[in-house]
Amino acid sequence: MNVVSYRPKPEELSYTFGGRPALGKVRPGTILELYTEDCFGGRVQTVDDLPSQVCEFPYLNPVTGPFHVEGAEPGDTLALHFISITPARDWAVSTTFPHFGALTGTHTTAMLQPPLEERVWRYDIDLDKNVAVYHARNSDFSVALPLDPMHGTVGVAPGANEARMTITPDAHGGNMDTPELRAGVTVYLGVNVEGGMFSIGDGHGLQGHGEVCGTAVESAMNTVVAVELIKGVATPWPRLEDDLHLMSTGSARPLEDAYRISQHDLVTWTSELTGLDTLDAYQLVSQAGQAPVGNVCDTNYTMVAKLPKAYLGGAADVYESAHARLRALGSQYTS
Amino acid sequence: MNVVSYRPKPEELSYTFGGRPALGKVRPGTILELYTEDCFGGRVQTVDDLPSQVCEFPYLNPVTGPFHVEGAEPGDTLALHFISITPARDWAVSTTFPHFGALTGTHTTAMLQPPLEERVWRYDIDLDKNVAVYHARNSDFSVALPLDPMHGTVGVAPGANEARMTITPDAHGGNMDTPELRAGVTVYLGVNVEGGMFSIGDGHGLQGHGEVCGTAVESAMNTVVAVELIKGVATPWPRLEDDLHLMSTGSARPLEDAYRISQHDLVTWTSELTGLDTLDAYQLVSQAGQAPVGNVCDTNYTMVAKLPKAYLGGAADVYESAHARLRALGSQYTS
Amino acid sequence: MNVVSYRPKPEELSYTFGGRPALGKVRPGTILELYTEDCFGGRVQTVDDLPSQVCEFPYLNPVTGPFHVEGAEPGDTLALHFISITPARDWAVSTTFPHFGALTGTHTTAMLQPPLEERVWRYDIDLDKNVAVYHARNSDFSVALPLDPMHGTVGVAPGANEARMTITPDAHGGNMDTPELRAGVTVYLGVNVEGGMFSIGDGHGLQGHGEVCGTAVESAMNTVVAVELIKGVATPWPRLEDDLHLMSTGSARPLEDAYRISQHDLVTWTSELTGLDTLDAYQLVSQAGQAPVGNVCDTNYTMVAKLPKAYLGGAADVYESAHARLRALGSQYTS
Amino acid sequence: MNVVSYRPKPEELSYTFGGRPALGKVRPGTILELYTEDCFGGRVQTVDDLPSQVCEFPYLNPVTGPFHVEGAEPGDTLALHFISITPARDWAVSTTFPHFGALTGTHTTAMLQPPLEERVWRYDIDLDKNVAVYHARNSDFSVALPLDPMHGTVGVAPGANEARMTITPDAHGGNMDTPELRAGVTVYLGVNVEGGMFSIGDGHGLQGHGEVCGTAVESAMNTVVAVELIKGVATPWPRLEDDLHLMSTGSARPLEDAYRISQHDLVTWTSELTGLDTLDAYQLVSQAGQAPVGNVCDTNYTMVAKLPKAYLGGAADVYESAHARLRALGSQYTS
Repeated sequence: MNVVSYRPKPEELSYTFGGRPALGKVRPGTILELYTEDCFGGRVQTVDDLPSQVCEFPYLNPVTGPFHVEGAEPGDTLALHFISITPARDWAVSTTFPHFGALTGTHTTAMLQPPLEERVWRYDIDLDKNVAVYHARNSDFSVALPLDPMHGTVGVAPGANEARMTITPDAHGGNMDTPELRAGVTVYLGVNVEGGMFSIGDGHGLQGHGEVCGTAVESAMNTVVAVELIKGVATPWPRLEDDLHLMSTGSARPLEDAYRISQHDLVTWTSELTGLDTLDAYQLVSQAGQAPVGNVCDTNYTMVAKLPKAYLGGAADVYESAHARLRALGSQYTS
Repeated sequence: MNVVSYRPKPEELSYTFGGRPALGKVRPGTILELYTEDCFGGRVQTVDDLPSQVCEFPYLNPVTGPFHVEGAEPGDTLALHFISITPARDWAVSTTFPHFGALTGTHTTAMLQPPLEERVWRYDIDLDKNVAVYHARNSDFSVALPLDPMHGTVGVAPGANEARMTITPDAHGGNMDTPELRAGVTVYLGVNVEGGMFSIGDGHGLQGHGEVCGTAVESAMNTVVAVELIKGVATPWPRLEDDLHLMSTGSARPLEDAYRISQHDLVTWTSELTGLDTLDAYQLVSQAGQAPVGNVCDTNYTMVAKLPKAYLGGAADVYESAHARLRALGSQYTS
Repeated sequence: MNVVSYRPKPEELSYTFGGRPALGKVRPGTILELYTEDCFGGRVQTVDDLPSQVCEFPYLNPVTGPFHVEGAEPGDTLALHFISITPARDWAVSTTFPHFGALTGTHTTAMLQPPLEERVWRYDIDLDKNVAVYHARNSDFSVALPLDPMHGTVGVAPGANEARMTITPDAHGGNMDTPELRAGVTVYLGVNVEGGMFSIGDGHGLQGHGEVCGTAVESAMNTVVAVELIKGVATPWPRLEDDLHLMSTGSARPLEDAYRISQHDLVTWTSELTGLDTLDAYQLVSQAGQAPVGNVCDTNYTMVAKLPKAYLGGAADVYESAHARLRALGSQYTS
Repeated sequence: MNVVSYRPKPEELSYTFGGRPALGKVRPGTILELYTEDCFGGRVQTVDDLPSQVCEFPYLNPVTGPFHVEGAEPGDTLALHFISITPARDWAVSTTFPHFGALTGTHTTAMLQPPLEERVWRYDIDLDKNVAVYHARNSDFSVALPLDPMHGTVGVAPGANEARMTITPDAHGGNMDTPELRAGVTVYLGVNVEGGMFSIGDGHGLQGHGEVCGTAVESAMNTVVAVELIKGVATPWPRLEDDLHLMSTGSARPLEDAYRISQHDLVTWTSELTGLDTLDAYQLVSQAGQAPVGNVCDTNYTMVAKLPKAYLGGAADVYESAHARLRALGSQYTS
């Protein structure tokens, strides 16, 4: 088993997908043990650390990477299987941020109203009890919420010589902020440049649907990822697979376009897998498909389209069984 | 127990919320046994019955009602508890429909491309096995999908002297098309006119998230509803409650506005119930809130915001415990 | 010349399209001299009259009508030619209104921020100088703006037995709030119910593009309209014609859908008139078409698609030359 | 007068803003004579040259540049005054393009319908008569349309280390596709990186509002631009100025957000210039503001907010009178 560990120094963190040299090179089949910083670069530690004061734009939402995957060329697909995602500290934070979030005016949904108050919440993380404990700021209210660790941000270098802020989700991945991206899941990313150049960051101890206030339970993470390369198979938008489901994603504005992209991909993928014609696949997805909301706060919104493999009539073997193989590799690693 | 049965004659079906005399009067505390027709008025029975040929606009999406609830006045809230929702036939249908659905140009998202093919799928409904069996039209593919019966349409007469097509969801309810509206759920609807004038229709054997092709597994239903009236409590947008969750809804375009309305209502409701200030409630909902997609195909799109009661610190008793009381009444009826 | 005058009493004002008996019956060919109240029903008269205090929902945006046009049946088109639109008072008002306008959170674009301040501006109207004089509230700044009187609201009873608040623009017309609806223009409205049942209101001394704060220079009006009926010609969305242009409208959300509806109608109309195939018409409109913004603040947004007749190769004679005839009738009336 | 000419070789054309070394260095005060290729790189020359066959993604929408302006630093503003924009050939082309345009499904507004036909129109450009002659493809219809030359694309390197395809408009400028960007206009662009790094391209002989089919009358251009640098003055979104108007732009989706950004900037700018408080400025812009549509087809949509200087009470002198000075310099150059 080829296991490699990376813990980036602060000055090695990346803030874009694309436009950066590789942090390291990995061979397909490698297991990566990564440390990822939280979206504030670890600078928001107490309720008095207001992000607008302790953080500096554009040094937000750092990612660990990019990693160059040997042999990856445009037209291939990277498979990243998340073996484990473990909060790295016994605390995490969440905040409002001026002109950010779904229930406030923003720089694009521009309003004349003053911004909402900037406020920080600090959560206790208890891995034994598997909870993050919420504490209200203006009362004694407190409640333990079950951990469901995930990564908000994973992606590759975009095509067309673009470089994009890590905060933006698009066809290259990025800050999709979907709770579906948890341990046990394989993410498929289409390769746009030599080496693929993937990065991972923005761990969440848990996240509500849509990340309505703009941030989740933001946590540094120790994350283990198994890397595979599927040659000669393109992937237009990030896809996910767990043991029971296939998933397509879409990131766009307005939110219905994110929904359309993800459902369109799931319908055409279902058609390819089952041999159903497009309309028959459309009908099947219409009744059996799910649509978990990713984010409704970032520069693009993200929706996931999700179908139980059980309804595909035995035709759910995708990407040369990469998920099953990586799942097995992950079990081997864990045991 | 006051139990009343209504089975509307075809000519008694309604096609609007508002603008119609009552089909019947009911006292609070009544249990209604209703028959509801499917969204095609039962006219699409075989795969050869194209809706655009056998149905006539605007006689689509008929509802059973309206019912006048004694004592209901503007500013009150109706509670409708769905005791059971049972497919009334051993078949159901779904179709594409020209210029309707999320992955096609429509009359508002106007495109120059020709419409998609109009096609009908007929499902076998098997109540014993609890499945609806999908049959592809252009192959032998077939798969049994678990039933999860629901009503797409429930609402009251709108305010401001409006009358709205039943196909439109808005603050008065209407065609929200959310799978959350299943048996065991109580729906709260703000009363806008004397008597409230609620109607129910558009049963679905099951429905995918967003109803992407525009129709679900459309089925006539035998539905049992317990009716309550909460005096002096207003409800701005429809809310739902099941044993474990509180839910707010929003219906609008673009889809992010449906999300905003529903999340905004859930945040302010959470604040009222718990005494958390608005930002503290915003934070709690941001991490613990869910966002099931209703429809992304109707004249307004619908999102649901959903919070486990367990996270409200014992403050989840709403609407004078109407849900618990109606749940008990339902158990009494069923046994 | 058949000239009829109507000045509705306060209790005769209408607040919906549809759901109301006719205020009067008119024969095609009639010239109507109408008085219309401003959108506040004349209750906001000084800067101290805050609309939320002196007006009562839903008694906003009153219209004069509805008028039953003899012989009008579903499938026909009403032509309303605006001979003159004259501010009826030497003052007019504009206001912000809580949760209304394009640069503030609203009930649908729901935000947690407090609403903007509610403020009233009173304009001096000087018909001789043809100006409305703006006065800042918090400084001595003052400027005279040229009058360009128009009606924000004109429409017929909707189809499908609907009744809609006058504030909503849709396929039946309504509160389109486009500055293109000025004197010299003919509006074409598809008839949905017997008699058509048209109404007119919401005069503006002038209006910026999009009515960004939610209200224009709101003015009662003395308006003269010539009424025609075109039998057997349907009109899916309101259209406008002036001496030099044909115009289509669309009202929807998001704003691009209003644009799509209006441009789609203009393209297909151009194709019908010129014999160009759809793509050739699409190309012509793409280069020669204009797109004046109507409103970006109402419950639906409105866009206008506008094409100079000069580019239609002599094929711009529409609706049986109704505009030319009514223009001539108007000249006869005025002289 | 410092006049410099640049005619890029094909291999010198740029396809991104950001991520490219400078094509040349210019001092403030320089007059640049530029040649810009059309959006197809000149490869679509006849109606048989289908873009999807003769062009290769992502080598679309080439720009001439980037130019490094000496002394330009983040926080400064570049002023680019367009002295003249002259079609460089006696022909131009426009096309439909699969999955592109406002009245068709696209990669983001994803639809299951097949794409529209790809078709090319070739226009005759007659500089003497000042017209572009449209020829229908499927009939003899032909019409001369007045030239109104403009540049669809102008911008600087984005901030946050991003590189963006030239086809995308955003805060750095880019493919705004507004007809307001014609000769006689000064464009103000906020500097994000040392040297500013501006580029110009995508000339249009004329363009309809919204560029509904996705392309305009695409033409190579000979363009003369005067360059100025305003030190220490930041500009958040591109602004324009002509002799009579100030203009703000916004580029986003949905279209109402582009409108909001542009109107918000115009309101706050008006407030700064006149000393009016925000609400008083909001009111003035609401009545006197215009909103020319830029594009409704690109990856972001663009709206312009436009205010006659005459209504600013003598407070319309902006950016240290750069427009007036550059206008004078332009006159000197031309004479």
